[in-house]
Amino acid sequence: MKIGFIGLGSMGRAMARNLLSAGHELVVYNRTHARAELLQDHGARVVETPAEAAQGVEAVVTMLADDRAVEDVVFGDVGVIRGLAKGAIHVSSSTISVGLSARLAAAHHAAGQGYVAAPVFGRPDVAEAKQLWIVAAGWPGDVAFVQPIFDAVGRGVTKVGAEAQAANTVKLAGNFLIASMIEALGEAFTLARKSGVDPQLFLEIFRSVMTKSPIFERYAGLVADESYEPAGFKMYLGLDNIRLALAAGEAAEVPMPMASLLRDQMLSAVARGMGDLDWAALAKLSAERAGLGGGR
Amino acid sequence: MKIGFIGLGSMGRAMARNLLSAGHELVVYNRTHARAELLQDHGARVVETPAEAAQGVEAVVTMLADDRAVEDVVFGDVGVIRGLAKGAIHVSSSTISVGLSARLAAAHHAAGQGYVAAPVFGRPDVAEAKQLWIVAAGWPGDVAFVQPIFDAVGRGVTKVGAEAQAANTVKLAGNFLIASMIEALGEAFTLARKSGVDPQLFLEIFRSVMTKSPIFERYAGLVADESYEPAGFKMYLGLDNIRLALAAGEAAEVPMPMASLLRDQMLSAVARGMGDLDWAALAKLSAERAGLGGGR
Amino acid sequence: MKIGFIGLGSMGRAMARNLLSAGHELVVYNRTHARAELLQDHGARVVETPAEAAQGVEAVVTMLADDRAVEDVVFGDVGVIRGLAKGAIHVSSSTISVGLSARLAAAHHAAGQGYVAAPVFGRPDVAEAKQLWIVAAGWPGDVAFVQPIFDAVGRGVTKVGAEAQAANTVKLAGNFLIASMIEALGEAFTLARKSGVDPQLFLEIFRSVMTKSPIFERYAGLVADESYEPAGFKMYLGLDNIRLALAAGEAAEVPMPMASLLRDQMLSAVARGMGDLDWAALAKLSAERAGLGGGR
Amino acid sequence: MKIGFIGLGSMGRAMARNLLSAGHELVVYNRTHARAELLQDHGARVVETPAEAAQGVEAVVTMLADDRAVEDVVFGDVGVIRGLAKGAIHVSSSTISVGLSARLAAAHHAAGQGYVAAPVFGRPDVAEAKQLWIVAAGWPGDVAFVQPIFDAVGRGVTKVGAEAQAANTVKLAGNFLIASMIEALGEAFTLARKSGVDPQLFLEIFRSVMTKSPIFERYAGLVADESYEPAGFKMYLGLDNIRLALAAGEAAEVPMPMASLLRDQMLSAVARGMGDLDWAALAKLSAERAGLGGGR
Repeated sequence: MKIGFIGLGSMGRAMARNLLSAGHELVVYNRTHARAELLQDHGARVVETPAEAAQGVEAVVTMLADDRAVEDVVFGDVGVIRGLAKGAIHVSSSTISVGLSARLAAAHHAAGQGYVAAPVFGRPDVAEAKQLWIVAAGWPGDVAFVQPIFDAVGRGVTKVGAEAQAANTVKLAGNFLIASMIEALGEAFTLARKSGVDPQLFLEIFRSVMTKSPIFERYAGLVADESYEPAGFKMYLGLDNIRLALAAGEAAEVPMPMASLLRDQMLSAVARGMGDLDWAALAKLSAERAGLGGGR
Repeated sequence: MKIGFIGLGSMGRAMARNLLSAGHELVVYNRTHARAELLQDHGARVVETPAEAAQGVEAVVTMLADDRAVEDVVFGDVGVIRGLAKGAIHVSSSTISVGLSARLAAAHHAAGQGYVAAPVFGRPDVAEAKQLWIVAAGWPGDVAFVQPIFDAVGRGVTKVGAEAQAANTVKLAGNFLIASMIEALGEAFTLARKSGVDPQLFLEIFRSVMTKSPIFERYAGLVADESYEPAGFKMYLGLDNIRLALAAGEAAEVPMPMASLLRDQMLSAVARGMGDLDWAALAKLSAERAGLGGGR
Repeated sequence: MKIGFIGLGSMGRAMARNLLSAGHELVVYNRTHARAELLQDHGARVVETPAEAAQGVEAVVTMLADDRAVEDVVFGDVGVIRGLAKGAIHVSSSTISVGLSARLAAAHHAAGQGYVAAPVFGRPDVAEAKQLWIVAAGWPGDVAFVQPIFDAVGRGVTKVGAEAQAANTVKLAGNFLIASMIEALGEAFTLARKSGVDPQLFLEIFRSVMTKSPIFERYAGLVADESYEPAGFKMYLGLDNIRLALAAGEAAEVPMPMASLLRDQMLSAVARGMGDLDWAALAKLSAERAGLGGGR
Repeated sequence: MKIGFIGLGSMGRAMARNLLSAGHELVVYNRTHARAELLQDHGARVVETPAEAAQGVEAVVTMLADDRAVEDVVFGDVGVIRGLAKGAIHVSSSTISVGLSARLAAAHHAAGQGYVAAPVFGRPDVAEAKQLWIVAAGWPGDVAFVQPIFDAVGRGVTKVGAEAQAANTVKLAGNFLIASMIEALGEAFTLARKSGVDPQLFLEIFRSVMTKSPIFERYAGLVADESYEPAGFKMYLGLDNIRLALAAGEAAEVPMPMASLLRDQMLSAVARGMGDLDWAALAKLSAERAGLGGGR
C-alpha cells in the first residue's frame, strides 16, 4: 500500500519502520527534517509538508504529540486535508481529545475523504517489537481498508464502531486505568516501605497474586456484565478492609488519598443498601453517579 | 502434623479440607457447630471450644471474619491462648488489623507460644483449588515450622520478615490494590458505556492490553526500584492524557473522582519539577506526602 | 455551686478562672500539679485525684485533650465515677469521640449519676473572654441544672437533645466546617498568589464578600431547609464556575483537590438531573450518598 | 457618563437600572429584544447590535452568561470591538475564563481601546440593592476612569492590579470558596441529620459560632500572612478532630469526601513535620503542592 506517515517521534519512527519492513511504500514528513532522513535509508521518500505526505497515497497515518500538533498538521495551509485525495483515508493514531477526533471525522467526510481513529497501546519498545494493540473506529469499509497498516504495526486490533471518536475515548479510558494502577501502587508501596516491608518482596507478592493470576480480568468481567450477585467478596467486607488499610496508613503516617476515595464510595454503597453485593458493585455506584441505571 | 483449625466459613472450610487431604490430623472448632460436623466425615475431630482446638496440637490456624471474632477466639475465657502449649504456634490467616496482629504476637510470646501472621490471597474457589498465595511473617523458626501448612493450602508463600504484623500490612495493601482497580474499572466502563462503546469490546481491550501483557508488572517494578528516569512516558504527557479523559467524562456527564485525584497529583508533580520523569513518579509524590525521600 | 474541675490546659484554666470569678466554689485536679496550684491563689482547692475532685460536688467539669485522657480520668482506679455522688452530674466539655460520649452516658447513668456532654467552640483567648459557645446534650433536667456553669464560661448555649453524644457529633461537624474553610482558603490563596494577586487584596475581598455579608448563613439556611428551588444560582452554572477555577489552577500549575471534589459532585448533580436546582443542592447529593432522601 | 450596556439577564437588568438611576446615559443591547425594551421606559436607548451599543460611548459594560456569549458579542461581525472608539473602555463584568479575559485585553489594546475586567460578587437581589462587590483589574487609568460605573452598581471595589485577568482569577477563587462552604455544609448537615440532630439547631450553632464571629476571617488572615506559629490550634489536634468526625460519619453511614480530603492533607502535614503548626498550615501544604515555598 502507498502510505503517507507524519510524526516521527519514538513511537512514529518504530511504526514507520515496521510499515517499510512489511513492504509498504512510504512517504514521510516530520517537522524536524533530520529525523525523517533516518528513514530515507530504509527506503522512505521524505517530503517537506504534511500536504505532500498526503498526496497520491491511499492512506496517511498521523502519530503526533497532542491536539495542537494534529490540528496544525491537518488543518494548516499545507495540511493533510489539502493534500489527501477524495476516497483516501486519514488514520489518526495520536492520543488526542475526543472532541478533536469528532471534528477531524467531520472535516474529512466533508472533503470526501475517509477518517479512521486508531490510537495504539504500547510504549516505544512495544512499537518496535510490532506488538502494539490498536483500537480502531470509523466507517467499517474504511477500517477494513487500512487493516494492512494495523497488521504491519501491531499484534491485534479491537474495532469499537463507526463513530471514530469512540476509539479515542477508549484509549483515554485505558490510559486512565494504567495511571490508576500506578497511583495505587505508589500508595501501597509507600505503606509497605514505611511499615518496614522490603519493596522487592511486595513486588513479588504483586506479581504472584495480581499479574500472574486472572484476578483483574475477572473483576473487569463482572463490571462489564454488571454482575454483582452472588457476591464473591461482599462490599461491607471490602469496606472493612479499606478501613483497616487506612488505619495502617494512619499508624505509619502514610496518606492514601485513593484509599480514602474507596472508603467513601464503599461507605456510600453500604449506606444505600449495597452492602451484600460483590465489591465490584463500586461500578454500579459509578454508573449511578453518572445518571445511569438508578432504576435497575 | 497435628493441627487445630478454627473458623469454618467458606474460606476456612476449603483450607481445612486441603489440610486433611494432605494427611494432617485436624481438630476443628466452629461457633456454628453444624459446619464443623461436615468436616467430621473427612476425618476431623470436632471440639466445643477454641481452647480445646488448641490443646495438644503443634499449630492452630485461625481463619475468621474480623478483629472482633479473632479477639473472642484468642483472648476469651476458653480461648486459644489458654489451650495452646508452650512452643506451639498460632497461625493467624484472617484479614485483621495491623494493631491486633501486633497485640497477638505480644500475647503469644508472653505466654511462651509462637505466632505467625499468614493472611492469604484468594477467594473461596481459589482456596478449594489449593491455589492461595500466602504472606507470612513471624520468627523465622516458627515460619519454617508451619511450612507444611502453607504447602497444603496454597501455591506459594512470600515471607516478609520477623515482625508478624508486616504480613497483615501487606495483605491490606494488596486488597487496596484490587479495590483501586475495581473503582478505576467502574469509572472507565461507565465512561465507555455513556460514550456508546460496547462494554464487551472494552473488556476485550482491557484483556489484550493490560492483563495479557506485563504492563502492570513493569510499572510495579519501576515503583519498587524508584526508577523514574529515563522516562518511558513522561509525567506531563500523563497529565495531558488524564486531562483529556476528564474532558471526555465531562462531555458525557460522567464524574470520575479517581481521574480527578490523578489529575491533581500529576499537576502537583509537574508544578514541583517532575514533569519530565516517568509518570510512575506518582509513587515518588506519594512517598514525599508520607514524609519519605523529599531530600533525594 | 460547688464544682469539680479536671483538666487545666489553656482552655480549662480559662474556664476554671471564669467559674471562680462567677462566685462558684471550685475543687480542681490536674495531672501536672503545678498548673493546679496557679488556681489556688484564685481560691480553688487543689486535690490529688480525679475522684477527689468529684467528691461532694454538684457537678464536675472535665476539659481534657482526647479520648484516652478522659477514659483515664473517668474510669481509672481513682476516677470520677468512683468519686461522684449519686445525682451529681459530670459535664464533659472535651472534644471526644461520639462513641466514648455514649459510653460515658451509659456508665454514669448506671451509677445513678448525671451526664451532660457540653463541648465548646472557641480558642483559649475566646475562653478567657467568656465568649465560648456551648453545645449541650443530656437529660433536660441535668442540662438545666448545670446552666450556671454555662453562664459563667460562655456567651450562649445550644441544646441539641437528650442523647448526650449528639453534642459531640455537632462539635465534630463544626470543627470539620472550620477545617474545610481553611483548606479552601489555602487552595484559593495559592491560586491567587501564583496568579500574581497580592494576598492582602484577596483577603480584603474575602472579608468584604464573605465574612461581612450573610452569604454563608444564607446557604446554611437553604441546606437546613432543603430548599433548592427556585434557584438563586443554578447548579450547572456552578459547575461552569468550578470548571473555570480548575482551568485557572491548571494554567498556574496549582492543584486544587477541593475544587476537583466539587467538580465531580456538581457533574454528578447535573448528570442526575439537578442542573437547574440551586447549587446548594450539593447538600441533596450528600444526603443521597448517605442513603437519605433518594425518594424525595 | 455615556455608557453602553450589553446583557440584560437578571444581573444585568439590575445593574443597568442602577446606572440609569445614577444619572448615566444608557445605550442597551440584548439578544432577546423584549428585555431591552423594559429599560426603554427608564430612559435607555435600545439598539440592534453589540457594535451599536459600543458606538459613541465612553465605556461599554458586558454582563453575559459565559465565555461563548462574550466571544460572540465582542468578536462577532457586529461586535463590540468594531463599534468601540479608540480610547473608550470595555468593562467586562461577566464571570468568564482567565484565558478569555487575557485575550480580550490583548484584542482591545491592539485596537487602541481600553479593557477593564470587573466581575462582581452578589446575586440578583444584591445587584438590585446596589450592594455588589466589584473586583477590578486593568490599566490604572482605565480603572479610575470607570469608577463612576462601580459607584452606581456596588458598595465597594477591590483593585487587584494592571493585569486584567487577575480580577477573573479572584472571582473564580471566590466562587470556589462559596461552593466549598456549601459542600462542607452539605456533609455536616447530613451527618447531623443522620445522627438525630435537628437541622435548625445545627443552623443556630453555625450562625452563633461561625457567621456571627470573626473565625473565618481570622483564619483567612493567618493564611494571607502565612502565619502558622505559634499555633492557636495545632495540626495534629486538627487531624484528631477530623478522624473523629470521619468515625462519626462511619458509624452513621455518612460518606464525607471533604473530610477524607482534609484527613489526608492533615496526615501528610503531620508526616512532613508540621504537626505542631497551626492547622491553618493546610495552606502551606497547598502552596507546596503547587511548587511554592518548599524551601522556607
